[in-house]
Amino acid sequence: MDNKKKENFSEWYTEIIQKAELADIRYNVKGFVVFKPWSVITMEKMYDIYEKELQDKGHNPAWFPIVIPESNFTLEASHVEGFTPEVFWVTEHGRGEKLEEKLALRPTSETAMYKMYSLWIQGLADLPLKIYQRGSVYRHETKATRPFIRSREFYWIEAHNCFATKKEAVNQVKEDLETTETIMHQQFCIPFIGFQRPEWDKFAGAVHTYAADTLMPDGKVIQQPSTHLLGQNFSKPFDINFQNEKGEKDYVWQTCYGPAISRMYASLISSLGDDKGLRFPFELAPIQIIIVPIYKEENKRNVLTYSKKIKKVLERDYRIKIDDSDNTPGYKFNEWEMKGVPIRLEIGGREVENNQITISLRTSKEKQSIKLIKLKKFIRIHAREITDTLRKEADENFKEVIHNADSLDKLKSALQKGGFVRVPFCSIDIKGKECADIIKAETSGDIRGTKVNDPERPRDEDKCICCGKPAKNIVYVAKQY
Amino acid sequence: MDNKKKENFSEWYTEIIQKAELADIRYNVKGFVVFKPWSVITMEKMYDIYEKELQDKGHNPAWFPIVIPESNFTLEASHVEGFTPEVFWVTEHGRGEKLEEKLALRPTSETAMYKMYSLWIQGLADLPLKIYQRGSVYRHETKATRPFIRSREFYWIEAHNCFATKKEAVNQVKEDLETTETIMHQQFCIPFIGFQRPEWDKFAGAVHTYAADTLMPDGKVIQQPSTHLLGQNFSKPFDINFQNEKGEKDYVWQTCYGPAISRMYASLISSLGDDKGLRFPFELAPIQIIIVPIYKEENKRNVLTYSKKIKKVLERDYRIKIDDSDNTPGYKFNEWEMKGVPIRLEIGGREVENNQITISLRTSKEKQSIKLIKLKKFIRIHAREITDTLRKEADENFKEVIHNADSLDKLKSALQKGGFVRVPFCSIDIKGKECADIIKAETSGDIRGTKVNDPERPRDEDKCICCGKPAKNIVYVAKQY
Repeated sequence: MDNKKKENFSEWYTEIIQKAELADIRYNVKGFVVFKPWSVITMEKMYDIYEKELQDKGHNPAWFPIVIPESNFTLEASHVEGFTPEVFWVTEHGRGEKLEEKLALRPTSETAMYKMYSLWIQGLADLPLKIYQRGSVYRHETKATRPFIRSREFYWIEAHNCFATKKEAVNQVKEDLETTETIMHQQFCIPFIGFQRPEWDKFAGAVHTYAADTLMPDGKVIQQPSTHLLGQNFSKPFDINFQNEKGEKDYVWQTCYGPAISRMYASLISSLGDDKGLRFPFELAPIQIIIVPIYKEENKRNVLTYSKKIKKVLERDYRIKIDDSDNTPGYKFNEWEMKGVPIRLEIGGREVENNQITISLRTSKEKQSIKLIKLKKFIRIHAREITDTLRKEADENFKEVIHNADSLDKLKSALQKGGFVRVPFCSIDIKGKECADIIKAETSGDIRGTKVNDPERPRDEDKCICCGKPAKNIVYVAKQY
Repeated sequence: MDNKKKENFSEWYTEIIQKAELADIRYNVKGFVVFKPWSVITMEKMYDIYEKELQDKGHNPAWFPIVIPESNFTLEASHVEGFTPEVFWVTEHGRGEKLEEKLALRPTSETAMYKMYSLWIQGLADLPLKIYQRGSVYRHETKATRPFIRSREFYWIEAHNCFATKKEAVNQVKEDLETTETIMHQQFCIPFIGFQRPEWDKFAGAVHTYAADTLMPDGKVIQQPSTHLLGQNFSKPFDINFQNEKGEKDYVWQTCYGPAISRMYASLISSLGDDKGLRFPFELAPIQIIIVPIYKEENKRNVLTYSKKIKKVLERDYRIKIDDSDNTPGYKFNEWEMKGVPIRLEIGGREVENNQITISLRTSKEKQSIKLIKLKKFIRIHAREITDTLRKEADENFKEVIHNADSLDKLKSALQKGGFVRVPFCSIDIKGKECADIIKAETSGDIRGTKVNDPERPRDEDKCICCGKPAKNIVYVAKQY
């Protein structure tokens, strides 16, 4: 790698995307990116892991159409207001024939799904309804395209749920935040803080929005999965009603949750990568074990035979490959380190003679030689350790970047360093918007909201750093991607 | 089920889609269908199995944009000619702003992918290139919508390959037909005949098209995966060139392969289902084992405890559920048979007392009682047997519907019975089109092509059943979906 991640993150990110062949931005439609095998193999694993967790928690998969008729789209007023500027419209077919009705390429699927939900839900027996779909959504973004971080097509999962009571809906939102912890943090090694977003930064149509914010190496914040308490804001206009226990007509309570796989991938490679290139949690590596045979002409055959034997031992359980190309061993070491392969097995004449393997982990500088008979166990143990090591490192880095400030000036200088800044603030209700706007103008920082876990209460003497009124909330401010 | 599959297939198909909750046709955009969990869980498994096979054969996954700029789309003349009538066009964004260029919602991805291929391929080191993507495509069909069989959005895999030589491309086409056999026939239990399509029925832009045709229970044929030898028809206009061994500029040889998961699902439920409802290969069933507890008030607790114990034994390896709803055992038996669950475990007082389980297979009429200790082995063995039984039955049914004819009249009456009719035919070259048109007009039958495996040569005395000229080919005729 020519660029150092900490010194010049933006260039490092561009370089790794090209060198590791993760994506190609040369597709000839503005804002659309081609995702190449080395990223897609990992993102497909991320889908598998996320979908399994959702299914274990009672969600079922469905596939809804990618087009939404304009008449659906406009049913919920603030939703249409929020999303219309970003919609791509399908208006014609064939040789220029107009469609009867304009169709939105889904920017999100509430208005596709909830019309159907109103047909499916009649009584308590149909509730709760917990359905998700994996797929892509389309938003005509005006901000600059960055592969995985922001493009006009992105890949996510959206789960849309209906309940008979508000209480169940509130519990679902909590469950969603736990899912983010279990999967995104524990398995993908991406640390985050869960926030309740301020009133002025909610999802269009939601009662409350909760989101997981994580940090990029340059200290800017990026939003990861958000979950929304929709209340009855959609169920009323979409007429999703049921007969409750008293025999009365009632409207369902709804939530939705949107883990964006392509964007999580951005956080994953950014926060786990280093100056040699990519690093992956063991389960997510496209190739988990690379075998580099090291030979001269006289022992080439023996070394390759031994390499194949080892591959055979491991290939049932792991994604493994032998690099028998003509490149030098040194070139191969660099190449596969850059590509993020977690375990490298070096096999030369000495290894063949002694029935050994020399092992190098992407997460460690030392090499080890072990007996062939111990190989399977070694890998089983280290597979987990590699992931644990990466998660701990990421957690450590994350802790370092939470600062405190009790004035606008201090906030401004703290934000220069990057990361989150904790400040007392008048209110995340709509009344606080004026202060938020001033803070944004003065410091370029956004109010990300109040912490969901271990909620923080201001002390009696705490004053809003902007207007000086008594602080109702402790909020986190950060510069945003 | 109210309808019998053999007597009234069309009504049976509509009924099973509603009763088993496979799809909903009430989405308010014409031609677009909502796919519900009971079908999607199976189709996701079908994707997994198909993708694994492709990866094992050296294909890598990628994600290309869903929109294709008009300027790409028009590069290959017969492709644009063939597909333009069916394209949906994205023309606007936001509040009616025009896009700079019209974007096609991909009806197939040649013209999205091959522009990128021309950037990626420079020399022999970049070849072969074998990439696939899973996703949905869009075609403004005018024929009636039938869920899974035909709708304006369908779910498939498309594999697009580039080779340095024609020979490798021809071999790829053979490999694709083998993949169809290994996966669609062996694992999904859908028998087929592989055909080389006549010249007038090729994919738009192909040199040759090969396709797997299978039959629906009403005797009409349905096309399953097709694979196309594209030759250099696309690589020249898209400029996918490389430096060959002689250092000269050369164009790659291409193939593409398109297994449509949603359409294979149509064949699967149609050919395997019976008058009780769905039947699934064991690996593809959304629920593989259903436990039906049978109790009175006095032994309810014991029966449910024992049921949970059994679920626990099996749930690591199988998708299993206990139906502890308030419905009667008889209702539950019918319900889960209709839904196609392969194995039912009945558990009542007697089973608890004797440490037994009563087992009923969806593919057999008899029940068996076995000791708990033998349960795991029983299921392991029968899981495979269930799939084998379904495949054999499907193969038997398929054999019965191949007839012969040596005149137009005999063809016409043979086609009344449904299935394929083997006939001598002048030629599948473009010269034969006139005869094909006459046959279509007189009999409603389509020339599906010549058999790929065990190629059949006409005898010297064989004459085309239409024009009476010497027959160059033995072709199969069928009525088409």
